[in-house]
Amino acid sequence: AKTFRVVVLPGDGIGPEVVAEAVRVLEVISKASTDVEIKLEEHLFGGCAIDATGQPLPESTLKACQEADAILMGSIGGPKWGVNSKVRPEQGLLGLRKALGLYANIRPANFASDSLLANSPLKPEIAQGVDIIVVRELIGGVYFGTRKEQGVLPDEDTAWDTMTYSVPEVQRITRVAAQVALAANPPLAIHSVDKANVLASSRLWRKVVTETLQAEYPQLQLDHHLVDSASMVIVASPKKLNGVILTENLFGDILSDESSVIPGSLGLLPSASLAGAPSVKDATVADFQPTFGLYEPIHGSAPDIAGQGIANPIGTILSAAMLLRYSLGLEKYASAIETAVRKVLDEKDKDGLELRTADLGGKVGTKEIGSKIVEVL
Amino acid sequence: AKTFRVVVLPGDGIGPEVVAEAVRVLEVISKASTDVEIKLEEHLFGGCAIDATGQPLPESTLKACQEADAILMGSIGGPKWGVNSKVRPEQGLLGLRKALGLYANIRPANFASDSLLANSPLKPEIAQGVDIIVVRELIGGVYFGTRKEQGVLPDEDTAWDTMTYSVPEVQRITRVAAQVALAANPPLAIHSVDKANVLASSRLWRKVVTETLQAEYPQLQLDHHLVDSASMVIVASPKKLNGVILTENLFGDILSDESSVIPGSLGLLPSASLAGAPSVKDATVADFQPTFGLYEPIHGSAPDIAGQGIANPIGTILSAAMLLRYSLGLEKYASAIETAVRKVLDEKDKDGLELRTADLGGKVGTKEIGSKIVEVL
Ligand SMILES: CC(C)[C@H](C(=O)O)[C@@H](O)C(=O)O
Ligand SMILES: CC(C)[C@H](C(=O)O)[C@@H](O)C(=O)O
Repeated sequence: AKTFRVVVLPGDGIGPEVVAEAVRVLEVISKASTDVEIKLEEHLFGGCAIDATGQPLPESTLKACQEADAILMGSIGGPKWGVNSKVRPEQGLLGLRKALGLYANIRPANFASDSLLANSPLKPEIAQGVDIIVVRELIGGVYFGTRKEQGVLPDEDTAWDTMTYSVPEVQRITRVAAQVALAANPPLAIHSVDKANVLASSRLWRKVVTETLQAEYPQLQLDHHLVDSASMVIVASPKKLNGVILTENLFGDILSDESSVIPGSLGLLPSASLAGAPSVKDATVADFQPTFGLYEPIHGSAPDIAGQGIANPIGTILSAAMLLRYSLGLEKYASAIETAVRKVLDEKDKDGLELRTADLGGKVGTKEIGSKIVEVL
Repeated sequence: AKTFRVVVLPGDGIGPEVVAEAVRVLEVISKASTDVEIKLEEHLFGGCAIDATGQPLPESTLKACQEADAILMGSIGGPKWGVNSKVRPEQGLLGLRKALGLYANIRPANFASDSLLANSPLKPEIAQGVDIIVVRELIGGVYFGTRKEQGVLPDEDTAWDTMTYSVPEVQRITRVAAQVALAANPPLAIHSVDKANVLASSRLWRKVVTETLQAEYPQLQLDHHLVDSASMVIVASPKKLNGVILTENLFGDILSDESSVIPGSLGLLPSASLAGAPSVKDATVADFQPTFGLYEPIHGSAPDIAGQGIANPIGTILSAAMLLRYSLGLEKYASAIETAVRKVLDEKDKDGLELRTADLGGKVGTKEIGSKIVEVL
């Protein structure tokens, strides 16, 4: 049996609760299968790490992550370590992304089950069929450019940040988007988003995306949108952006959050942050090129409901499915989890179990959802 | 009678058609009132100016604008002067904003009439009662910082832009937001949006907004949102952001476009770009401090429907109302126009005329809407 090492970072707030259910799912797969063994090891990260060690990303956690095949994370942060604290959980997250070279953030926004349309803020005819995957560049742009704080000389009364991109940075994220597009059948369209009518970095972005796809993936459809226009289309007619939205770090931060509210609950959505282009189509253990990655639900640590056992673990469980797909090459188990999740969410008249946590207007607890998914699996 | 000079820039596409109706409204007010005379003069700007003079903002147009009390604009741009052209209409717009010091962009997103709820992409219970005014800083930030294009040495393969803000720039836009908030009774809440967990310019922004309001407008409510979170809230529960959204140039570009689709048609919404803080509360000609400004509908030049006489002129007519309010101190005529617009849009059982252009699913033409508004006035 092939052995994989997965680092688990439960984090803060509801993090430990939702991660526990995803861990159960991974353990079941590890035990039930004869071909793989998944070794899970927990480490401190985020606010709990600050409390224990003074740092959000302790050296020992970083080392464990560097030696692992993949990372499963819960959520970090909370009012205890707010904007006015010197040391904050987000610094650990940005540091981890950079240290591990996690340049590609993949965030699907789609309905795990059409039964959830009632939870969308959009009218059903607008929301139904939305199937967007945001591919966001994660370790470049204005997040990691040179900056100057207010109070620093010269020009004490001025602060600035630099939004910078290089050709290779845009090439590699474009290839990730292309691989994601090609994993679907037929391949997805690519919608590149920038602000090329104003920004030099966006003009480089647009040029490199266009040239890279033309040279390496001429079969893929590509169009370009300005970020302001894209933010309108996501609300007014999101299906026009079905496929892959390919964009830089800051725009991806904004647009992925915006599109993630369409499916009705942040609690449902997973994400992957990869250190390379995924190779998934018809993956078999033989031809698969594993990609190191960190997987986490898109929701925050929700301190208001932490400890109550009512958080939705589905975003984390679907993140574990992405982990199996992209980092371990276990497509069959990934799909099996997604099918089980759909079964648990679907309405009874669609042959589902119709189980819903509080965020979806239901009363079912975190553990019960986890148990049912394990049972269906 | 007091005389005002208003420069009219019809622009491209549907610009001339919608501006013509707003001009009629202003002419009616000028003729009917004994206390004011409004002198209107048209100038070339945008794509049509490129065709005629080679430049989007000819010297003579800029001079006329500098000597006027206010500017009414249609819309500019079109495929003829696309992203690959050397000279583009948007350059004229950015140049005009900078040359005239138009640092404060004000964009309301609200329902001119509840009769329009059916046109919103959001569910009625989420959309009803949305009343957001975006106050966007318009001549700072990454739009006007130093930048380097790809192909320029050193580092030919890199391009960058600088997002920069100074204390006085943030102070003055904060005062505009405060004045807008105070013009309502009770005063509106202020929601400042930034990305202070990552950007130095946002940390300056947050600090200066907080200090300015505490010192000068302690009676106003203030909270802070991260831009990614704000972009979610605008879709999921926009009423939480009712009041004034105060934000920097790039975030304002994105969030104002995002919120503008809530009322169902871009054709309905006006905007103002001011060179000073507005003074409007109970404005009388005596105590009013006029603010120079440029007024335009938020929609684009819509070349696909240009020349057909079907464009919605209401966004431009409401822009003329803002012009009367902020630049001429004629609050009573501004409100009269807004009341007339509501009457024309309202359903018949609400005592309205229920007239709708194509963007709202109706068949009424541009001129007919203009005539009815003039008639009601
Ligand atoms: C916490 C914050 C720094 C982070 C980001 O902006 O990248 C978060 O919003 C995200 O999207 O993961
Ligand atoms: C045309 C473009 C440069 C402009 C901007 O980004 O400011 C437009 O989107 C706007 O909002 O007026």
